[in-house]
Amino acid sequence: MAVVTFCPGAFPCRPRKLSGVNKALLYLDPESSLNLQSQIRQKLVEGILRGTFPAGTRLPSSRKLAEQLGVARNTVVLAYEQLQEEGFLESRERSGFFVNDEIFEGRVGYQGAAPGQRAEDERWQQRIRARAGEGRDFQWPADWQRHPYPFIDGHFDASLYPTAQWREANRLALGSRVVSEDVAAEGNADDAALIEEIRTKMLPRRGITAGPDEILITLGEQNALYLLALLLVDESVSVAVEDPGNPKMRRILAQKAANIIHQPVDEHGMVINSRLDDADIVYVTPSHQVPTAVTMNTQRRQALLKKAAQLDQLIIEDDFEHESNYLGQPHPALRSLDNDNRVIYISGLPKVLAPGLRIGFIVAAPELIREARRLRQLVIGRPSLVNQRTAALFLSLGHYDAFMSRLHHEMHQRWLALRDALNHYRPNFTTLPTQGGTVFWVLCPEHYNVETLALEAAKRGILIEPDTHYYAAEGKSKNCFRMGVTSIPGERIREGVEKLRELMWELASGEGEFLPEDDPDLLDGESVQALMSGSTWIYKTVYGDPCTFELDADGTMRGRAGHANEERDVGRWWVEDDLWCRQWEHWAYGEVGRFYIAIKGQHLRIYNTQKRIVDSAIIHPAAEPQAD
Amino acid sequence: MAVVTFCPGAFPCRPRKLSGVNKALLYLDPESSLNLQSQIRQKLVEGILRGTFPAGTRLPSSRKLAEQLGVARNTVVLAYEQLQEEGFLESRERSGFFVNDEIFEGRVGYQGAAPGQRAEDERWQQRIRARAGEGRDFQWPADWQRHPYPFIDGHFDASLYPTAQWREANRLALGSRVVSEDVAAEGNADDAALIEEIRTKMLPRRGITAGPDEILITLGEQNALYLLALLLVDESVSVAVEDPGNPKMRRILAQKAANIIHQPVDEHGMVINSRLDDADIVYVTPSHQVPTAVTMNTQRRQALLKKAAQLDQLIIEDDFEHESNYLGQPHPALRSLDNDNRVIYISGLPKVLAPGLRIGFIVAAPELIREARRLRQLVIGRPSLVNQRTAALFLSLGHYDAFMSRLHHEMHQRWLALRDALNHYRPNFTTLPTQGGTVFWVLCPEHYNVETLALEAAKRGILIEPDTHYYAAEGKSKNCFRMGVTSIPGERIREGVEKLRELMWELASGEGEFLPEDDPDLLDGESVQALMSGSTWIYKTVYGDPCTFELDADGTMRGRAGHANEERDVGRWWVEDDLWCRQWEHWAYGEVGRFYIAIKGQHLRIYNTQKRIVDSAIIHPAAEPQAD
Repeated sequence: MAVVTFCPGAFPCRPRKLSGVNKALLYLDPESSLNLQSQIRQKLVEGILRGTFPAGTRLPSSRKLAEQLGVARNTVVLAYEQLQEEGFLESRERSGFFVNDEIFEGRVGYQGAAPGQRAEDERWQQRIRARAGEGRDFQWPADWQRHPYPFIDGHFDASLYPTAQWREANRLALGSRVVSEDVAAEGNADDAALIEEIRTKMLPRRGITAGPDEILITLGEQNALYLLALLLVDESVSVAVEDPGNPKMRRILAQKAANIIHQPVDEHGMVINSRLDDADIVYVTPSHQVPTAVTMNTQRRQALLKKAAQLDQLIIEDDFEHESNYLGQPHPALRSLDNDNRVIYISGLPKVLAPGLRIGFIVAAPELIREARRLRQLVIGRPSLVNQRTAALFLSLGHYDAFMSRLHHEMHQRWLALRDALNHYRPNFTTLPTQGGTVFWVLCPEHYNVETLALEAAKRGILIEPDTHYYAAEGKSKNCFRMGVTSIPGERIREGVEKLRELMWELASGEGEFLPEDDPDLLDGESVQALMSGSTWIYKTVYGDPCTFELDADGTMRGRAGHANEERDVGRWWVEDDLWCRQWEHWAYGEVGRFYIAIKGQHLRIYNTQKRIVDSAIIHPAAEPQAD
Repeated sequence: MAVVTFCPGAFPCRPRKLSGVNKALLYLDPESSLNLQSQIRQKLVEGILRGTFPAGTRLPSSRKLAEQLGVARNTVVLAYEQLQEEGFLESRERSGFFVNDEIFEGRVGYQGAAPGQRAEDERWQQRIRARAGEGRDFQWPADWQRHPYPFIDGHFDASLYPTAQWREANRLALGSRVVSEDVAAEGNADDAALIEEIRTKMLPRRGITAGPDEILITLGEQNALYLLALLLVDESVSVAVEDPGNPKMRRILAQKAANIIHQPVDEHGMVINSRLDDADIVYVTPSHQVPTAVTMNTQRRQALLKKAAQLDQLIIEDDFEHESNYLGQPHPALRSLDNDNRVIYISGLPKVLAPGLRIGFIVAAPELIREARRLRQLVIGRPSLVNQRTAALFLSLGHYDAFMSRLHHEMHQRWLALRDALNHYRPNFTTLPTQGGTVFWVLCPEHYNVETLALEAAKRGILIEPDTHYYAAEGKSKNCFRMGVTSIPGERIREGVEKLRELMWELASGEGEFLPEDDPDLLDGESVQALMSGSTWIYKTVYGDPCTFELDADGTMRGRAGHANEERDVGRWWVEDDLWCRQWEHWAYGEVGRFYIAIKGQHLRIYNTQKRIVDSAIIHPAAEPQAD
C-alpha cells in the first residue's frame, strides 16, 4: 500500500501551505487482479469523474508519483499518457499533466450511481428503521430575494440584521476567558450568563418567572419540539395539535407514532371542546397561531388551563412568535397563568437576530428539564457555548432591547401597510383578525385554487404561501393563503398587493363581478348626489372591523373604523358625470377614487370605472330628503 | 388583566433603550380570591425570590404602577410598604423602592421547589417516555485550565486556536451574499461550498471519493452518531461496538434498545472474530481507537470488510480522530477500501478549529444520505449555513492546511515529549503502542485503583482519565488510564509525569519495590565496572519497543531503539562508589543518572539512589572478561 501527495481543490492551492498536509491518499492494492498501471488509471479516473480531482487540478510529476507509490516511473508515465489519449488529462508544456477542463462538457457534474439504482434503493429500504416521512413542506424558491414582492413570513430582509452589534458580541464572546475555558468542556450545562439574561430580561416580559434549573437551551424551535417529543411522546400518547397547524410538529409526532388529535382553529385560536378530552398533551401556539396569526383570547386560555388541570394534561406552549406581538397589551403566556407546572413553554431569540444561529429554550419543571438535558446530550451534544455567550452579551449590552424596539417599529409599519393595502385593493377576500404580528391569513373565494394562484403570482414576482401544507389532511385546501411582512420592504407592499389583485382579477371567472349592461340598479349622477347627501354607510373592513362613513350634504365626510372607533379620518365627496368620487385625507392613500354606484334596497354595490365590483356597503339615507 | 413596565436585569438598564420593549408582565387576576394589594405583593415576592427581579432592581413608582395596573395608588403604596417592612424592598431617598440587596443573604440563589419534591419526581416519572440513561460519563473538573498538568484529550489550550484566521472566515461568511440569501431559507440543503471543500480537500486525504449527494453535514460527532442510530437502529438490530469504546455511542444504542455486542480490543484494534457474526452493524474507530488510541492494522481492516461483505453487515467508521494520525503513512479509511457502499464514514473538522462550532459530516450511499437529511430536519433543522460557510472559507483560503500543519507539528512534539517522559519515569506501568495521535493508554499494576489515583492526582494539579467509563460493564476497571496532550503545554509534560510518578510511589505498597537489606544480588562498584564493560543490555521501552545498549570498556556507550532501530543515541558510563552512572547525549534528557545495580542470572535490576527499583533489563556480559 502506498500513498501519494496531491493538490486538488476548487480553489487554487497556496504552495507554501501544502507542507505535508494537503495529501490525497492513492493506494495500490497488492492483491488486486489489475496490474499497477491499470490500478493507477482506475483510481485517477474515479477521482476525476466523481469530482474529487476537479478540472484543472495539476497531477504530481510522474517521478514524484512513482517514488511515492513505489513503482517504476514508466508505469506512471504510461498511465498518464493513456489518460491523456482518452481525454481525461491534458499535458501543458513545462507544467505537467492537468485534469482536462473539457472532460466534463456535456456532463452535469457527478452523476451518482445510475445503473442498478432500483436494487440499491431496495437494499436501503430494508435497512432503514426510522423515516422522517415525505412531508408536504412548502418551499420558497431559493432565489426569493430576487422577487420584488416576497410576502414571506419568517425570512428577513438583510437590512434588519444588527450586523455591527452582533459582531461586537461575537468578538467579545470569542475573546472571553469563560468561553476559552468552558468551550472544550464535555459538560452539559448551559452558559450561566445566557440563562440569567433569559430569566431576567426575556421571560419577565411574558410574565414568567423561572429558576435556572427550569431552563434548557436548544437549537431553536425545531430542536425544542424534537426533544420534547422524544421525552414525552410514544405510540401510547395522544397529542392534540391545531389544524391548520405547524407542519413540522405534525411530522415529529408522526415519526414518534403518536395518536394525533387535530383540533380546529377559529378567529380566537384553537377551539377548546370535548375533542381535547382524550389528549395527554396539547400543543398550542396561543400568542400568534401558526399559520393563521390569530391570538388566543383570555377565555380560551383559561378554559384550556382548566381542562388541562381537570384531565391532568400537559400543555406545550410554542411562543416562538411572541416577539412580534406588539399591538395592544400582550397576553401573558399560558405558563405565567399556570400554578401547576403543567405548561411547558418554548421560545427563543428572533431568527433575524443571528442568521442561522437559532437559539431557543424550553422552560419547564426542573425534573423535566433534567431529563431533556440528558437527551439533548445524546442528540446534539450541547449547543455551542460561544453562540450562547454571544447571545448573552448581545442581551446584556442592551443591543437586544434596542434591536427589538427597532424591529417592532418596522414590523408594525409593514403590518399596517399590508392591512391598508389589503383593505384598499380588497379583491373580494377577507382575512382573519390579528393583533399585530407579521402575517395575514387571507381567505379567497371558492373559485380560486390557491396553489395555482401562488404559482402564477410567483411568475409576477409576488410570493404568497398557500394553506395546503398546514392542514393535517392532504389536498384539503380551504382556499386560504398567507402573506407576511418580514421579508418585503415596506415601500413595496402596496404595489405587491395591487399586482396581486390584478392577477386575481385575471384568474377570476368574471361572473357576477361586472356591472350588468342596463342594470336598473345603476344610479345616474343626479341620483347619486341625492342618495349620498346626508347618508351613512355601514361597512366592514377586509379584516372584519366595523367601519362607518358619514356623508354630509356639503361634500364633507367623516369616517370611523374599529370596534372602538379607534381610527378616524375626514374627506370630501362629489359627483362627476355618473361617478361618485371621494378623497380621504389619509385613508385610501389620500387619493381620489371614482366609482359607479348601484343600489338595491339598502345594499350599495360599488364599481370601479371599468365597471368591476370593488366593494359593497349598507347605506342609511338621510332621514329627510335634502333640499335642492 | 393589567400590565406593568419594569426594569429588571442583572446588567444596568440603559434608559434610552427601554422604549416599550423591556417590559415585565405583571397581571392581576380579577377572579383571584386575594385582594389587589395581596396579589401585587404575591407577584413581587415571587419575582424577587426566584431572581426574576434581582437584588438592586428599581421598582416603578407607585403612581406609575397604579396607573398601569388600573388600581388605586394607595393599594400599591401599601403593598410596597409592607414589602419594605418584610425586608424584600428598601426605600432609597428620592429614588424610590429597590429590591433589597440583603434579602438573599444566607440564601444560595433560587432554591427550586423543595417541598413536595418526591411527589413531583413521581409525577414526571410517569410522563417520561424516553430516557438518556444515567450514563457513567467522566467529567473533567470545570476549572481544568487551572490545573498545571491537564493530561486531557480533546480539550485544547487556547494558544492553538487560529483566532485571526477563523474571524476572517467568519467575517467573510457573514458578509457574503449567499449567506444573506440562504440563511433564512427553510430548505434542507447544505452549503455547496463546504461540501465541495470536504469532497476535494478533506476526503481525498483519506482516500475517499464522494459525490455531493453522498455527504451530509452534522453538528459534530455526537449528532452524526445519533442520526445514524435513529436511521438504522431499533430493538431488532444488533450492533457491535468496541469494548472499551465510545461511551456516548453505547448510550445512544441503549436508548434505541439495540442489541449490543461488546467486542474486545487489543493492540491492533477491534478483534475480528465470530462474535461479530450476529451483528447487523459494526461501529468501529479504526484510525485511533477510542479510548486506547491504537490503530487497526491492515489485516484486521481487510478481515472486517470481508466479513461484512459475507454477512451483509454495515460498518460505521468513526474517523473523528483521523486528523491526529500524523506518524508514518496513514492507513486509508475503511470506506476507501469498500467497493460495496457498506461503510458509512463519519468525520469532521477538528474541535480546536472553532470552539463550540462542531461541524461533522456523514459520507454514505446517496439513498442513506437522503433519508438522514430528512431526519436531520426533524431533529435539529439544518446546521447553521453561516457556520458552514465560515468553515468552507477557512478551508478555501488555505487556513485549514496551514493550521493543520501547525497543529500536527505541535501535537507530534507533545506526543514525543509524553512518550519520553513516560519512558524516563516509567513507574512500572506500560502503554499500548500508538501510531502518533494525542493519547497514551496506560496500564497500571493491579494494586492501584485508577479512580483513586486520578482523584489524588487531581489534588496535585495532574489530570488523568480513569478507564472505567469506557467499559460496557460497570465497575470493571482494567486498571488503565488515559493521558492526552491536546491541553497541556509541551513544556509541562515532563514535570507532570514526574509528579505523577511521585504520587504513584506514595500510593504503592512498597512491597518488592525496594532493594532488600543485604541483598546478595547487589553489586559493589568493582563488580559493576567488571560486569558492564563490553556488555549489551536488552531492554523494552514503556511503549513496547525493543531497545539495546552497548557499553564499551572505555566508558562510551551506544543505544538503539525501535523495531527498525530508528532511534539512536550515544553516551558515557562510569562508576562512582557502588553506583553505576550514565549520561546520554539526548536520551534521558541528557542528564546524569546514578543507579544501584543488582543481578540474578542475566536479569538486571536497576535501583535509584533511594534504592527504589526504577527499571530492569537483560544483560549479555562481554564475551571475554575485561583485562584490569
